[in-house]
Amino acid sequence: MAERIDELHRNGYKIIQNPEYFCFGCDAVLLTGFANVKAGETLMDLGTGCGIIPILLEAKTRGSFFAGLEIQEEMAGLARRSVELNSLSGKIRIDLGDIKNIKENYKASSFDVVTSNPPYMNNGGGLKNAFSPKAIARHEVLLTLDDVIKGACHLLKTGGRFYMIHKPHRLVEIITTLKKYNLEPKVLRQVQPFAEKPPEMILIQAVKGARSMVKVENVLVIYEKPGVYTPEVMRIYGM
Amino acid sequence: MAERIDELHRNGYKIIQNPEYFCFGCDAVLLTGFANVKAGETLMDLGTGCGIIPILLEAKTRGSFFAGLEIQEEMAGLARRSVELNSLSGKIRIDLGDIKNIKENYKASSFDVVTSNPPYMNNGGGLKNAFSPKAIARHEVLLTLDDVIKGACHLLKTGGRFYMIHKPHRLVEIITTLKKYNLEPKVLRQVQPFAEKPPEMILIQAVKGARSMVKVENVLVIYEKPGVYTPEVMRIYGM
Repeated sequence: MAERIDELHRNGYKIIQNPEYFCFGCDAVLLTGFANVKAGETLMDLGTGCGIIPILLEAKTRGSFFAGLEIQEEMAGLARRSVELNSLSGKIRIDLGDIKNIKENYKASSFDVVTSNPPYMNNGGGLKNAFSPKAIARHEVLLTLDDVIKGACHLLKTGGRFYMIHKPHRLVEIITTLKKYNLEPKVLRQVQPFAEKPPEMILIQAVKGARSMVKVENVLVIYEKPGVYTPEVMRIYGM
Repeated sequence: MAERIDELHRNGYKIIQNPEYFCFGCDAVLLTGFANVKAGETLMDLGTGCGIIPILLEAKTRGSFFAGLEIQEEMAGLARRSVELNSLSGKIRIDLGDIKNIKENYKASSFDVVTSNPPYMNNGGGLKNAFSPKAIARHEVLLTLDDVIKGACHLLKTGGRFYMIHKPHRLVEIITTLKKYNLEPKVLRQVQPFAEKPPEMILIQAVKGARSMVKVENVLVIYEKPGVYTPEVMRIYGM
């Protein structure tokens, strides 16, 4: 157990991670730069891992309450200790549970905002360590894209917003699944490592019950040159 | 009737246009840079206008036969004269007709490639001159997105490719309509005027009967700075 504590460059917050499990990546941070939580709103982060998304969004926004749902007991434990370390127990709650049982455990239409940085890969069939913490975080071992979106639809109020980061090659499936659950894609933004490279991630905002009209934003480029973040990414990281 | 003849920077080809009708734009040229026509393949361009797309693709590719379907008699006449002016009557045919009657006029599965730069705007209800040539080219007065995609599906062989340029705000509707007609979106590329501006166009390739997996490409930026095309756009224009 080689735990470590990292600085988050926001409000002096810190986060406890264990590299043997799964450490948060650029994608989780970018999602917190994309998600808009208004004053007084409540948020649920599906598959919260070490709790990075609720902790960063508590720092960046004026939301009133942040929940994170995590299926892995060890990860949920790390997340709870990070919440305590930052004295955030009054505003952030980490729940241990399965997104697939969301209807039994949460009231419908009970959140303003849902976020998720779910497992990206649906090719988990041949994995060697399919139930390792890293595999569970990266591959659709314990839940599918459909489960995540169905869960978000249950939790969100009408007009509530769902923010997700995912892989571009699954965009068509993401859009058709969102539509299936009455979540209308409203904003798309592709994230490219460099201006001339194809995107490795895509940010999506969907609104429950909205009419069809999507805003495609200008590309978000990560690096100006190798090792040097663009000014926009520096702002998102709080550097 | 203020007709003019413009150079196309390809094979010495020229095109006849009439600014009182509708002149081709950057979008038609970008579509010819995006569409891939292989040696010996046949192509149909839906809503061909002055014939710019079949003429440019005849110049750029080794396709064997190029058709263009146009509903406006004057536009079809211009396109036919451009085909003759470039001595292309053996390889390009301009048909006068309505995309909505495509099933009556064309055999199913008869083309390898279909292209379209259709009317973008679905807000034609309050137009003053709804049946002017420009309104017909820009607004969904005589046909809808559904008509275009349904027509493409009828014409394409299984595995055949549909290339379209359209407006980003209709992307979700485009994807769901393509899926409805068994055309799987396979490549998406957004086109931004500048690196920091949102896209004004989106290029889409769909394949009839393909499996779901989309490649999102890096953004195509038009201008390096005001008035100066990026090298990629210069190549597409043949400059």
